[in-house]
This record gives sequence, structure tokens and C-alpha cells, in this order.
Amino acid sequence: MSTVDLSPTARTRLGRARERGRLDRPALYEVLDAGMICHLGVVADGAPMVIPTGYGRHGDTLYVHGSTGAKSLRIAEAGEICVTVTHLDGIVLARSIFHHSVNYRSAMIYAVPRPVEDPEEKLTALRAVSERLAPGQWDVARRPTRRELAATAVLALSLEEASVKIRQGPPNDDEEDYAMDVWAGVLPVRQTFGEPVPDARLHEGTPVPDHIRHRR
Amino acid sequence: MSTVDLSPTARTRLGRARERGRLDRPALYEVLDAGMICHLGVVADGAPMVIPTGYGRHGDTLYVHGSTGAKSLRIAEAGEICVTVTHLDGIVLARSIFHHSVNYRSAMIYAVPRPVEDPEEKLTALRAVSERLAPGQWDVARRPTRRELAATAVLALSLEEASVKIRQGPPNDDEEDYAMDVWAGVLPVRQTFGEPVPDARLHEGTPVPDHIRHRR
Repeated sequence: MSTVDLSPTARTRLGRARERGRLDRPALYEVLDAGMICHLGVVADGAPMVIPTGYGRHGDTLYVHGSTGAKSLRIAEAGEICVTVTHLDGIVLARSIFHHSVNYRSAMIYAVPRPVEDPEEKLTALRAVSERLAPGQWDVARRPTRRELAATAVLALSLEEASVKIRQGPPNDDEEDYAMDVWAGVLPVRQTFGEPVPDARLHEGTPVPDHIRHRR
Repeated sequence: MSTVDLSPTARTRLGRARERGRLDRPALYEVLDAGMICHLGVVADGAPMVIPTGYGRHGDTLYVHGSTGAKSLRIAEAGEICVTVTHLDGIVLARSIFHHSVNYRSAMIYAVPRPVEDPEEKLTALRAVSERLAPGQWDVARRPTRRELAATAVLALSLEEASVKIRQGPPNDDEEDYAMDVWAGVLPVRQTFGEPVPDARLHEGTPVPDHIRHRR
């Protein structure tokens, strides 16, 4: 099984990663803006902890949020964190097991998070997170109250130290394996939306808004 | 935005998490066996690093693999790691921004990995990883050679210390918000497979096997 493609962006190769991050800024934004959840890594008592959570981008800042009671957010405030967003685009089926792989787009961000206290920035952050998960809802749903804002912890991460890794295309088999009579190629993987399921307590006749019905 | 649903399983609540992990063993297996990639968390020089990678389960053991040259795998060998598998099942659209959420299934595993050296177990592990990503391929593709096995690092993780978190169902709005004329409900999210894309160097007339064409 080939591991070249999903290999880590080692922290020790940061010089290069930083360079790539800068060079590929549009690619970084594209990967981040195509996702709905990230995996947030923190260090708790010396051990790693990886938590799926929502996020949003505003310019060159990434925001993650959580309850003020969430231990992980409090831990994250105390030190460096890593945020990874991954899109699985296809299964790469090779002639050998070893060269099986995946097509994917992935972004990794290293940052020392800055807790957001300013109510204005907090609102900007929550809007970014909300619009990532549920675009269009900010304009129709009830916005956060002062109390709700206070109950929400928001962390801001600079996107300066980031890297993007992308693998697309057919399998890379060993030359001698191309003679084999084994099907090879790519099985595409996509994330799709199903039919909206109305809440049981919805007022009769409330239509599904276009931004939900036609979301792609 | 509600953060109750995607809140962390804090390491400090391990007693409870451990209990849930044991009680929900079938649920844990179900979450793991429905995924194709995990997010592997390691600590490198005191900072977290979150890497997307393939994995496979064999009984009560989870296997992750990588190139013997991959720094992250070498780091992972040296200490505790965290593996998280997340399935996004739906966007929960509430009447208030605060109660927007996601439906999801997530598994977190904490373990001190054991490097797999025995060739028999290595083969079992690679089969588990391969069949997770591309079920059916182990029987048709060329299996790993001794040389390829040697070039592949495999780590075994006990599933003993694991937790499962699942959120499904409609939004939980504040009672007074149910009076609002705002559509609320769930937008389902699914991972689907597209039409297989044949490799350009495929022998003419090689059919797409059923296990690829009809994969669900």
C-alpha cells in the first residue's frame, strides 16, 4: 500500500511546508472553504487528543468555537494546536495492493490560538463558522444573543503556518505490473446532500428555502 | 451555535469514556467499519500533529500503516497517540444560529501503539487496511512482496480505551423559538461513489469488477 500520498507533512519539514503554504494560499483557501468540519489536535497532559469540530475562515484567520465549558477548548487556549481539514476525493485502485492509495485534498494549520473576547470579532467568527456549515442561515435564523455569545468560546488561528497536500490522478503502478489483467483506475468519492427532513414542530406550510434545498 | 453535540470527549472524563467504550463496543466497531480514513494525532516536540491516513480493524485491534520513512509513524511509535474517525451525517438547521449543529458518528481511540514486526501479523494488518479502503481488492490485486512489507511500517492499537459519540435527530431549539416562522430540520449528508474512471494503461476490454462497480 503506497503511503507516499497520504504521508504526513512532518513538522520538521516546516521550512518547506511554510513555503508551500505561502505559495499555495489560493489552494489553502479552496481546501478550507470546501469543508464543513475539521479535526482539531491538542496536547492534554502530554498526550494528543483529536476532536472533530466546526470551523470558519475569515480572510487569513481560521476560527474554531466551542462551549466555554469544553475542556478541549480550554486546553487549546493554553498551547499550540493543529487543525486538519481533509477531503477524500477517490479510491485509487492499483494493480498491486502496495500502490493502492487515495485521491484527496488536505490542509494542516499549526497555530498558537488567540482567544477571541471582543464581541464584534466573536460575531464575525460565529458568522464564518455558521456560514461554512450552513450557508445562508445567518440571514434567516435568530442571531446569537449576548448571553449565547458569552457561553461560546472562540479561538482565532493565524493561517500563516499552513500546508496543503493534494493527490489526484490514476494509480502509479510498478512498470512490470502494467502487464497484469487487473482492472485499475479511480473510484470517485463525493459528499452529497439528501432531501431535507423537516422538523416535526415546523409550522405547516413553511417552505424549504432555496439555499437549503439546492445546496450543492 | 450549539457545541454540545460536537463537544470533545475530554481525556479527563476518561472514566466515563472508558465505560462507554466498553458498553458500546458494537457501536465502536460500526463507526470504525463505516470509514475509510482516520485522523491520527501525535505529539511532535510538544506540539500536536493531526494526519489523515488509512486504517483497518481486525478484531479488537486497529492498524495504521505508513512508509518506514514517514516521520510521523516514527514519532507515533515513541508515545501515546489518538485516532479519530468521524462520519458527518447531516446538517442540523435550527431556528436560532446558536442551536445549529451536525448529526455525526465519531470514534476516538487512545493507545500506546505497538510496532508490528511479525510478517504474518503485518500481512493481516495490511489486509485489514486494504479491505477497509478497497474491499475485494486483496483477492484480485498483486499482494505485497517481502520487500514491500519491509518498506511498510505498521502500528497496532488496542481498542480498549475508546469512546463513541453519536448525535442524530432534529434540532433542539429554545422553547420560545418554536414560534418562529423559520424552516428547521436536517439536511442529510452522504458519502457516495461515482462512476469508476479506468486507468489509461488498462488492457482493452478489462471489465470493472462488481465489487468496484457496485460499491455502496
